[in-house]
Amino acid sequence: MKNYVYIATSLDGYIADIEEKLDWLPNPNEEINLEINYPEFIKSIDAIVMGKNTFNIVCSFGGDWPYPKPVFVVSNSLKEIPEKYKDKIQLLNGSVENILKEIHSQGYKNLYIDGGVNIQNFLKEDLIDEIIITTIPILLGGGKPLFSKISKRLNFECVSSSIDKGIVQNHFKRVHTK
Amino acid sequence: MKNYVYIATSLDGYIADIEEKLDWLPNPNEEINLEINYPEFIKSIDAIVMGKNTFNIVCSFGGDWPYPKPVFVVSNSLKEIPEKYKDKIQLLNGSVENILKEIHSQGYKNLYIDGGVNIQNFLKEDLIDEIIITTIPILLGGGKPLFSKISKRLNFECVSSSIDKGIVQNHFKRVHTK
Repeated sequence: MKNYVYIATSLDGYIADIEEKLDWLPNPNEEINLEINYPEFIKSIDAIVMGKNTFNIVCSFGGDWPYPKPVFVVSNSLKEIPEKYKDKIQLLNGSVENILKEIHSQGYKNLYIDGGVNIQNFLKEDLIDEIIITTIPILLGGGKPLFSKISKRLNFECVSSSIDKGIVQNHFKRVHTK
Repeated sequence: MKNYVYIATSLDGYIADIEEKLDWLPNPNEEINLEINYPEFIKSIDAIVMGKNTFNIVCSFGGDWPYPKPVFVVSNSLKEIPEKYKDKIQLLNGSVENILKEIHSQGYKNLYIDGGVNIQNFLKEDLIDEIIITTIPILLGGGKPLFSKISKRLNFECVSSSIDKGIVQNHFKRVHTK
Protein backbone atom coordinates (compact mmCIF):
# COMPACT_ATOMS: atom_id res chain seq x y z
CA MET A 1 0.00 0.00 0.00
CA LYS A 2 1.62 3.21 -1.17
CA ASN A 3 0.60 6.81 -1.68
CA TYR A 4 2.05 8.63 -4.67
CA VAL A 5 2.27 12.26 -5.69
CA TYR A 6 2.72 12.88 -9.43
CA ILE A 7 2.75 16.56 -10.16
CA ALA A 8 4.29 19.40 -12.17
CA THR A 9 5.69 22.49 -10.48
CA SER A 10 7.50 25.59 -11.62
CA LEU A 11 11.22 25.91 -10.83
CA ASP A 12 10.21 28.00 -7.82
CA GLY A 13 7.86 25.29 -6.57
CA TYR A 14 4.40 26.51 -7.56
CA ILE A 15 1.57 24.36 -8.93
CA ALA A 16 -0.39 27.41 -10.18
CA ASP A 17 0.60 31.03 -10.59
CA ILE A 18 -0.64 33.91 -8.45
CA GLU A 19 -3.84 34.16 -10.53
CA GLU A 20 -4.29 30.36 -10.37
CA LYS A 21 -3.24 30.19 -14.03
CA LEU A 22 -1.70 27.06 -15.55
CA ASP A 23 -0.76 28.52 -18.94
CA TRP A 24 2.93 27.95 -18.16
CA LEU A 25 2.47 24.17 -18.27
CA PRO A 26 3.57 22.49 -21.52
CA ASN A 27 0.93 22.10 -24.20
CA PRO A 28 -0.75 18.70 -23.58
CA ASN A 29 -0.28 17.87 -27.27
CA GLU A 30 3.48 18.25 -27.02
CA GLU A 31 5.11 14.88 -26.50
CA ILE A 32 7.50 14.95 -23.58
CA ASN A 33 9.46 11.79 -22.93
CA LEU A 34 10.23 11.50 -19.26
CA GLU A 35 10.98 8.33 -17.35
CA ILE A 36 7.58 8.08 -15.68
CA ASN A 37 4.95 9.22 -18.11
CA TYR A 38 1.42 10.01 -17.02
CA PRO A 39 -0.47 7.18 -18.79
CA GLU A 40 1.94 4.60 -17.37
CA PHE A 41 1.71 6.13 -13.93
CA ILE A 42 -2.10 6.08 -14.00
CA LYS A 43 -2.00 2.43 -15.05
CA SER A 44 0.19 1.61 -12.06
CA ILE A 45 -2.15 2.98 -9.38
CA ASP A 46 -5.47 1.64 -8.08
CA ALA A 47 -7.38 4.83 -7.34
CA ILE A 48 -7.11 8.62 -7.31
CA VAL A 49 -7.67 10.80 -4.26
CA MET A 50 -8.18 14.50 -4.95
CA GLY A 51 -9.44 17.59 -3.16
CA LYS A 52 -12.48 19.64 -4.04
CA ASN A 53 -10.48 22.31 -5.89
CA THR A 54 -8.89 19.79 -8.23
CA PHE A 55 -12.29 18.14 -8.78
CA ASN A 56 -13.78 21.52 -9.73
CA ILE A 57 -10.92 22.21 -12.14
CA VAL A 58 -11.34 18.80 -13.79
CA CYS A 59 -15.12 19.38 -14.11
CA SER A 60 -14.50 22.82 -15.63
CA PHE A 61 -12.51 21.24 -18.49
CA GLY A 62 -15.75 19.70 -19.78
CA GLY A 63 -15.33 16.88 -22.30
CA ASP A 64 -14.96 13.24 -21.37
CA TRP A 65 -14.22 12.19 -17.82
CA PRO A 66 -10.43 11.81 -17.91
CA TYR A 67 -9.79 9.17 -15.25
CA PRO A 68 -9.69 5.44 -16.03
CA LYS A 69 -9.50 4.59 -12.32
CA PRO A 70 -11.86 5.12 -9.35
CA VAL A 71 -11.74 8.66 -8.03
CA PHE A 72 -12.28 9.75 -4.43
CA VAL A 73 -12.99 13.42 -3.79
CA VAL A 74 -12.05 14.61 -0.33
CA SER A 75 -14.09 17.54 0.92
CA ASN A 76 -15.64 18.62 4.18
CA SER A 77 -17.79 21.29 2.50
CA LEU A 78 -19.10 19.48 -0.58
CA LYS A 79 -22.30 17.68 0.49
CA GLU A 80 -23.21 15.90 -2.69
CA ILE A 81 -21.63 14.84 -5.95
CA PRO A 82 -23.25 16.44 -9.04
CA GLU A 83 -25.58 13.92 -10.71
CA LYS A 84 -23.46 13.46 -13.85
CA TYR A 85 -20.43 12.34 -11.82
CA LYS A 86 -22.26 10.06 -9.39
CA ASP A 87 -21.14 6.84 -11.07
CA LYS A 88 -17.55 8.06 -11.34
CA ILE A 89 -16.55 9.34 -7.96
CA GLN A 90 -17.09 8.84 -4.26
CA LEU A 91 -17.17 11.71 -1.80
CA LEU A 92 -15.18 11.32 1.42
CA ASN A 93 -14.57 13.52 4.40
CA GLY A 94 -12.95 13.41 7.82
CA SER A 95 -9.34 12.83 8.83
CA VAL A 96 -6.75 11.62 6.35
CA GLU A 97 -6.46 8.39 8.37
CA ASN A 98 -10.19 7.69 8.13
CA ILE A 99 -10.23 8.53 4.43
CA LEU A 100 -7.41 6.06 3.84
CA LYS A 101 -9.12 3.40 5.96
CA GLU A 102 -12.27 3.69 3.86
CA ILE A 103 -10.36 3.53 0.55
CA HIS A 104 -8.26 0.57 1.69
CA SER A 105 -11.40 -1.24 2.89
CA GLN A 106 -12.66 -1.08 -0.68
CA GLY A 107 -9.51 -2.90 -1.82
CA TYR A 108 -7.59 0.01 -3.36
CA LYS A 109 -3.96 -0.05 -2.29
CA ASN A 110 -1.75 2.16 -4.41
CA LEU A 111 -3.16 5.66 -4.49
CA TYR A 112 -2.50 8.75 -6.55
CA ILE A 113 -2.79 11.68 -4.15
CA ASP A 114 -3.58 14.82 -6.14
CA GLY A 115 -4.37 18.48 -5.47
CA GLY A 116 -2.37 21.04 -3.51
CA VAL A 117 -4.19 21.10 -0.17
CA ASN A 118 -4.87 17.37 -0.32
CA ILE A 119 -1.18 16.57 -0.88
CA GLN A 120 -0.22 18.95 1.94
CA ASN A 121 -2.68 17.21 4.29
CA PHE A 122 -1.17 13.82 3.48
CA LEU A 123 2.38 15.17 3.97
CA LYS A 124 1.41 16.65 7.35
CA GLU A 125 0.57 13.10 8.46
CA ASP A 126 3.70 11.64 6.81
CA LEU A 127 1.52 9.55 4.53
CA ILE A 128 3.27 10.12 1.19
CA ASP A 129 5.65 7.36 0.05
CA GLU A 130 6.78 8.62 -3.34
CA ILE A 131 6.84 12.02 -5.04
CA ILE A 132 7.40 12.34 -8.78
CA ILE A 133 7.96 16.02 -9.55
CA THR A 134 8.14 17.27 -13.11
CA THR A 135 9.84 20.65 -12.94
CA ILE A 136 8.77 23.11 -15.62
CA PRO A 137 11.85 25.36 -15.79
CA ILE A 138 10.14 28.69 -15.29
CA LEU A 139 10.27 31.13 -12.39
CA LEU A 140 6.73 32.38 -11.76
CA GLY A 141 7.62 34.61 -8.82
CA GLY A 142 4.59 33.57 -6.80
CA GLY A 143 1.53 31.34 -6.73
CA LYS A 144 0.16 28.25 -5.04
CA PRO A 145 3.10 26.33 -3.56
CA LEU A 146 3.24 22.53 -3.71
CA PHE A 147 4.69 22.24 -0.22
CA SER A 148 3.57 23.83 3.02
CA LYS A 149 4.30 23.79 6.73
CA ILE A 150 4.84 20.37 8.29
CA SER A 151 5.54 19.60 11.91
CA LYS A 152 8.58 17.37 11.45
CA ARG A 153 11.26 17.02 8.82
CA LEU A 154 10.69 14.24 6.30
CA ASN A 155 13.59 12.56 4.51
CA PHE A 156 13.40 11.29 0.97
CA GLU A 157 15.93 10.08 -1.59
CA CYS A 158 16.03 10.83 -5.27
CA VAL A 159 16.03 7.53 -7.13
CA SER A 160 15.87 8.68 -10.74
CA SER A 161 15.90 11.73 -12.92
CA SER A 162 15.15 12.30 -16.59
CA ILE A 163 15.12 15.29 -18.91
CA ASP A 164 13.31 16.09 -22.14
CA LYS A 165 12.81 19.43 -23.88
CA GLY A 166 14.38 21.27 -20.96
CA ILE A 167 11.92 19.78 -18.48
CA VAL A 168 13.27 17.60 -15.67
CA GLN A 169 11.47 14.89 -13.71
CA ASN A 170 12.86 13.81 -10.36
CA HIS A 171 11.52 10.78 -8.51
CA PHE A 172 11.75 10.83 -4.71
CA LYS A 173 11.05 8.01 -2.25
CA ARG A 174 10.50 8.42 1.48
CA VAL A 175 13.32 7.01 3.63
CA HIS A 176 12.98 6.32 7.33
CA THR A 177 16.56 5.50 8.25
CA LYS A 178 18.04 8.92 8.90
CA MET B 1 30.07 37.29 -19.14
CA LYS B 2 27.78 35.04 -17.14
CA ASN B 3 26.30 35.01 -13.68
CA TYR B 4 25.95 31.63 -11.99
CA VAL B 5 24.03 30.40 -8.98
CA TYR B 6 25.40 27.22 -7.37
CA ILE B 7 23.39 26.31 -4.31
CA ALA B 8 21.82 23.54 -2.25
CA THR B 9 18.16 23.64 -1.29
CA SER B 10 15.78 21.33 0.52
CA LEU B 11 13.14 19.50 -1.52
CA ASP B 12 10.72 22.24 -0.51
CA GLY B 13 13.07 24.95 -1.76
CA TYR B 14 14.69 26.34 1.38
CA ILE B 15 18.34 27.31 1.78
CA ALA B 16 18.11 27.36 5.60
CA ASP B 17 15.48 26.07 7.98
CA ILE B 18 13.15 28.24 10.05
CA GLU B 19 15.83 28.69 12.72
CA GLU B 20 18.45 29.45 10.02
CA LYS B 21 19.95 26.01 10.67
CA LEU B 22 21.96 24.15 8.01
CA ASP B 23 22.32 20.83 9.86
CA TRP B 24 20.26 19.10 7.17
CA LEU B 25 23.02 19.66 4.58
CA PRO B 26 25.24 16.62 3.91
CA ASN B 27 28.35 16.32 6.02
CA PRO B 28 31.11 18.18 4.10
CA ASN B 29 33.39 15.15 4.57
CA GLU B 30 30.96 12.88 2.75
CA GLU B 31 31.98 12.52 -0.87
CA ILE B 32 29.06 13.18 -3.19
CA ASN B 33 29.67 12.71 -6.87
CA LEU B 34 27.48 15.03 -8.85
CA GLU B 35 28.10 16.28 -12.35
CA ILE B 36 29.21 19.76 -11.34
CA ASN B 37 31.21 19.51 -8.15
CA TYR B 38 32.02 22.54 -6.07
CA PRO B 39 35.84 22.67 -6.52
CA GLU B 40 35.42 22.41 -10.30
CA PHE B 41 32.70 25.05 -10.30
CA ILE B 42 34.84 27.46 -8.25
CA LYS B 43 37.73 26.91 -10.68
CA SER B 44 35.44 27.84 -13.58
CA ILE B 45 34.40 31.27 -12.26
CA ASP B 46 36.37 34.52 -12.00
CA ALA B 47 34.95 36.03 -8.81
CA ILE B 48 32.35 35.54 -6.10
CA VAL B 49 29.60 38.02 -5.26
CA MET B 50 27.85 37.49 -1.92
CA GLY B 51 25.60 39.39 0.43
CA LYS B 52 26.40 40.50 3.96
CA ASN B 53 24.58 37.57 5.59
CA THR B 54 26.61 34.99 3.67
CA PHE B 55 29.81 36.91 4.44
CA ASN B 56 28.95 36.85 8.16
CA ILE B 57 28.25 33.12 8.05
CA VAL B 58 31.55 32.44 6.28
CA CYS B 59 33.41 34.58 8.86
CA SER B 60 31.67 32.72 11.71
CA PHE B 61 33.13 29.40 10.49
CA GLY B 62 36.59 30.66 11.51
CA GLY B 63 39.54 28.71 10.10
CA ASP B 64 41.19 29.52 6.80
CA TRP B 65 39.55 31.82 4.28
CA PRO B 66 37.78 29.35 2.01
CA TYR B 67 37.71 31.18 -1.33
CA PRO B 68 40.47 30.85 -3.93
CA LYS B 69 38.93 33.64 -6.03
CA PRO B 70 38.28 37.36 -5.45
CA VAL B 71 35.22 37.98 -3.30
CA PHE B 72 32.88 40.97 -3.50
CA VAL B 73 30.54 41.58 -0.58
CA VAL B 74 27.40 43.51 -1.45
CA SER B 75 25.95 45.50 1.41
CA ASN B 76 24.35 48.87 1.86
CA SER B 77 24.69 48.74 5.66
CA LEU B 78 28.22 47.41 6.14
CA LYS B 79 30.55 50.44 6.11
CA GLU B 80 33.91 48.77 6.42
CA ILE B 81 35.48 45.39 5.95
CA PRO B 82 36.98 43.93 9.14
CA GLU B 83 40.78 44.38 9.11
CA LYS B 84 41.62 40.68 8.76
CA TYR B 85 39.60 40.37 5.54
CA LYS B 86 40.75 43.60 3.89
CA ASP B 87 43.11 41.88 1.48
CA LYS B 88 40.54 39.25 0.55
CA ILE B 89 37.35 41.08 -0.23
CA GLN B 90 35.97 44.27 -1.68
CA LEU B 91 32.85 45.95 -0.35
CA LEU B 92 30.28 47.14 -2.91
CA ASN B 93 26.91 48.81 -2.67
CA GLY B 94 24.28 50.36 -4.87
CA SER B 95 22.16 48.86 -7.62
CA VAL B 96 22.84 45.42 -9.02
CA GLU B 97 23.68 47.05 -12.37
CA ASN B 98 26.30 49.33 -10.81
CA ILE B 99 27.77 46.48 -8.80
CA LEU B 100 28.15 44.42 -11.97
CA LYS B 101 29.64 47.37 -13.83
CA GLU B 102 32.31 47.77 -11.15
CA ILE B 103 33.15 44.05 -11.08
CA HIS B 104 33.31 43.83 -14.88
CA SER B 105 35.52 46.94 -15.00
CA GLN B 106 38.03 45.01 -12.90
CA GLY B 107 38.11 42.30 -15.56
CA TYR B 108 36.01 39.61 -13.81
CA LYS B 109 33.52 38.10 -16.21
CA ASN B 110 32.04 34.86 -14.95
CA LEU B 111 30.58 35.40 -11.51
CA TYR B 112 29.34 33.13 -8.76
CA ILE B 113 26.33 34.89 -7.26
CA ASP B 114 25.79 33.60 -3.72
CA GLY B 115 23.52 34.30 -0.75
CA GLY B 116 19.71 34.25 -0.60
CA VAL B 117 18.88 37.96 -0.81
CA ASN B 118 21.74 38.63 -3.23
CA ILE B 119 20.54 35.90 -5.61
CA GLN B 120 16.97 37.20 -5.36
CA ASN B 121 18.14 40.73 -6.21
CA PHE B 122 19.95 39.44 -9.31
CA LEU B 123 16.90 37.41 -10.36
CA LYS B 124 14.65 40.46 -9.95
CA GLU B 125 16.80 42.18 -12.61
CA ASP B 126 16.92 39.03 -14.79
CA LEU B 127 20.69 38.88 -14.38
CA ILE B 128 21.16 35.17 -13.66
CA ASP B 129 22.26 33.01 -16.61
CA GLU B 130 22.66 29.61 -15.02
CA ILE B 131 21.35 27.96 -11.85
CA ILE B 132 22.85 24.75 -10.53
CA ILE B 133 20.60 23.47 -7.75
CA THR B 134 21.60 20.54 -5.60
CA THR B 135 18.40 19.27 -4.00
CA ILE B 136 18.83 17.70 -0.59
CA PRO B 137 15.81 15.39 -0.48
CA ILE B 138 14.32 16.56 2.79
CA LEU B 139 11.13 18.45 3.51
CA LEU B 140 11.91 21.11 6.13
CA GLY B 141 8.40 22.57 6.27
CA GLY B 142 9.64 26.15 6.36
CA GLY B 143 12.69 28.39 6.31
CA LYS B 144 14.52 30.81 4.06
CA PRO B 145 13.35 30.22 0.47
CA LEU B 146 15.82 30.34 -2.42
CA PHE B 147 13.34 32.10 -4.71
CA SER B 148 11.19 35.14 -4.08
CA LYS B 149 8.81 37.49 -5.85
CA ILE B 150 9.88 38.64 -9.32
CA SER B 151 8.05 41.02 -11.59
CA LYS B 152 8.07 38.89 -14.76
CA ARG B 153 8.27 35.21 -15.50
CA LEU B 154 11.73 33.89 -16.40
CA ASN B 155 12.19 30.82 -18.58
CA PHE B 156 15.03 28.36 -18.13
CA GLU B 157 15.81 24.91 -19.46
CA CYS B 158 17.24 21.98 -17.59
CA VAL B 159 20.38 20.85 -19.42
CA SER B 160 21.66 18.12 -17.13
CA SER B 161 20.85 16.18 -14.04
CA SER B 162 22.85 13.82 -11.86
CA ILE B 163 22.19 11.81 -8.73
CA ASP B 164 24.40 10.44 -5.97
CA LYS B 165 23.45 9.14 -2.52
CA GLY B 166 19.84 10.19 -3.04
CA ILE B 167 20.82 13.79 -3.76
CA VAL B 168 19.98 15.24 -7.17
CA GLN B 169 21.64 18.14 -8.96
CA ASN B 170 19.79 19.89 -11.77
CA HIS B 171 21.47 22.43 -14.02
CA PHE B 172 19.27 25.16 -15.50
CA LYS B 173 20.16 27.73 -18.16
CA ARG B 174 18.18 30.88 -18.95
CA VAL B 175 16.39 30.81 -22.31
CA HIS B 176 15.03 33.91 -24.01
CA THR B 177 13.09 32.37 -26.87
CA LYS B 178 9.75 31.60 -25.24
